[in-house]
Amino acid sequence: MIRPSETIEHRHDAQRWALTLAYDGSLFYGWQKQADGTATVQTALEQALSQIAGTQIHTIAAGRTDTGVHATAQVVHFDTTAIRPQQAWVRGVNALLPAGVAVCNAQPVDSRFHARFDAFGRRYRYVLQVSAVRSPLLYGRAGWIHTPLDINAMQQAAALLEGEHDFSSFRAAACQAKSPQKTLYRAQLGGRPELITLDLHGNAFLHHMVRNIMGALVYVGNGRLSVAGFADLMEARSRLKAPPTFMPDGLYLTGVDYPPHWGVATPPPPEWLWSGGSAL
Amino acid sequence: MIRPSETIEHRHDAQRWALTLAYDGSLFYGWQKQADGTATVQTALEQALSQIAGTQIHTIAAGRTDTGVHATAQVVHFDTTAIRPQQAWVRGVNALLPAGVAVCNAQPVDSRFHARFDAFGRRYRYVLQVSAVRSPLLYGRAGWIHTPLDINAMQQAAALLEGEHDFSSFRAAACQAKSPQKTLYRAQLGGRPELITLDLHGNAFLHHMVRNIMGALVYVGNGRLSVAGFADLMEARSRLKAPPTFMPDGLYLTGVDYPPHWGVATPPPPEWLWSGGSAL
Repeated sequence: MIRPSETIEHRHDAQRWALTLAYDGSLFYGWQKQADGTATVQTALEQALSQIAGTQIHTIAAGRTDTGVHATAQVVHFDTTAIRPQQAWVRGVNALLPAGVAVCNAQPVDSRFHARFDAFGRRYRYVLQVSAVRSPLLYGRAGWIHTPLDINAMQQAAALLEGEHDFSSFRAAACQAKSPQKTLYRAQLGGRPELITLDLHGNAFLHHMVRNIMGALVYVGNGRLSVAGFADLMEARSRLKAPPTFMPDGLYLTGVDYPPHWGVATPPPPEWLWSGGSAL
Repeated sequence: MIRPSETIEHRHDAQRWALTLAYDGSLFYGWQKQADGTATVQTALEQALSQIAGTQIHTIAAGRTDTGVHATAQVVHFDTTAIRPQQAWVRGVNALLPAGVAVCNAQPVDSRFHARFDAFGRRYRYVLQVSAVRSPLLYGRAGWIHTPLDINAMQQAAALLEGEHDFSSFRAAACQAKSPQKTLYRAQLGGRPELITLDLHGNAFLHHMVRNIMGALVYVGNGRLSVAGFADLMEARSRLKAPPTFMPDGLYLTGVDYPPHWGVATPPPPEWLWSGGSAL
């Protein structure tokens, strides 16, 4: 166990570390630190890391998640001159973190590794409960729709998302991305009749892109939008006629891809995150 | 939608209703109403029901759950003279309940039906995460153990629980049951390597019985107790040498059995509650 009172040895040059993080987004106001001390994941993490390091630590994440959005594998890097064993950055930090966030893995990395700029792929899962009554046990962990959905139509629409497209129709007004042109390597609807999962794997995502896609797919599922209408919506490159943004509750950042030479890889989403359902 | 300001018609004789409830036990101080207004499931439910009925409603549950213990199918009955459509007791009540509890089903029942005394079976599931790091996304929803477990030994020990036994070794000191003699129809360990489920189906349960059984099975799993030692523990009919009570986080009341003539039946646990894993 790490005691804050221990004398911490420091090296002359900084060491870069990469962390894999999991968090329950319903307990935080998003990833990003705010000047007023709002409870964000970054604020909580930097406080714990700084206590272990004995000096202020600054972190950079692969992707900024919004309020209510979870992560099973967010990647973060930071630099420190503090000399600490690897487990200090996992168990030591976890002992100082609130229950809503945990470090799953820590590894020393080359000082040129950058958690955000080196990421060439991000994976998100959206989990959606389809049920007349919203379960209190999935509240904050899954989106919810009380009407039955046409899964087949939703799967057809989801397939249209794959490839390189201008995703302006699914882009939030506040989005700061340079270009709306992104590539989705995979868009797959799976899961169980009462709990649908949408897995998206892309090179990068626009602001609210997954939630906006989910909103449109739900319209396809309940017949308010046809599959052809979904194609037209993509083609329109405008949010003017797009269905509303879906709730953040069911959204999980499940992984980040880096070039193999960095040696930083995130595991597949845990099986318990409703992976591998096949009853659809 | 039900408006509290509506005039509510009343009948002369009371109608008995049976409800199936789900709740997130981490948000309540157990089922049972307390004089000081503590946030319990019963308090929240009776407030919402009373608002719909326009008069004070009293409820009786199949089983009292402790702080932190969840339910996917708790059964409750109450009497009312208020004449309301069935959906008033589901959607109307849910609109007034906090997000942590929901009515899944409501049905009129014979006035001799009793949620507690007519129950001849109760079903519980304990969900246990086995992982070096406790996931923030399972916090409060699953128990947690960081050491690997010998599942095979645990399954052998669990099998010993089936049948009629004196369960004093798994009985809390505060237990008010008349007899420690109970029958377990089924005790089955399943799930996935990282998320184990223990399903117990019995005629009745002693106070803390599932959590005490889980505590002992974890000792079997990590080698602190042999399967023979587990049998000896059962035979001893004493908590003196029993492993400690396991945390409530992973415990779910998943169903209650009634004689078929009452027409009250709870559904199997939802598939998303990590049912049906087979990788063990």
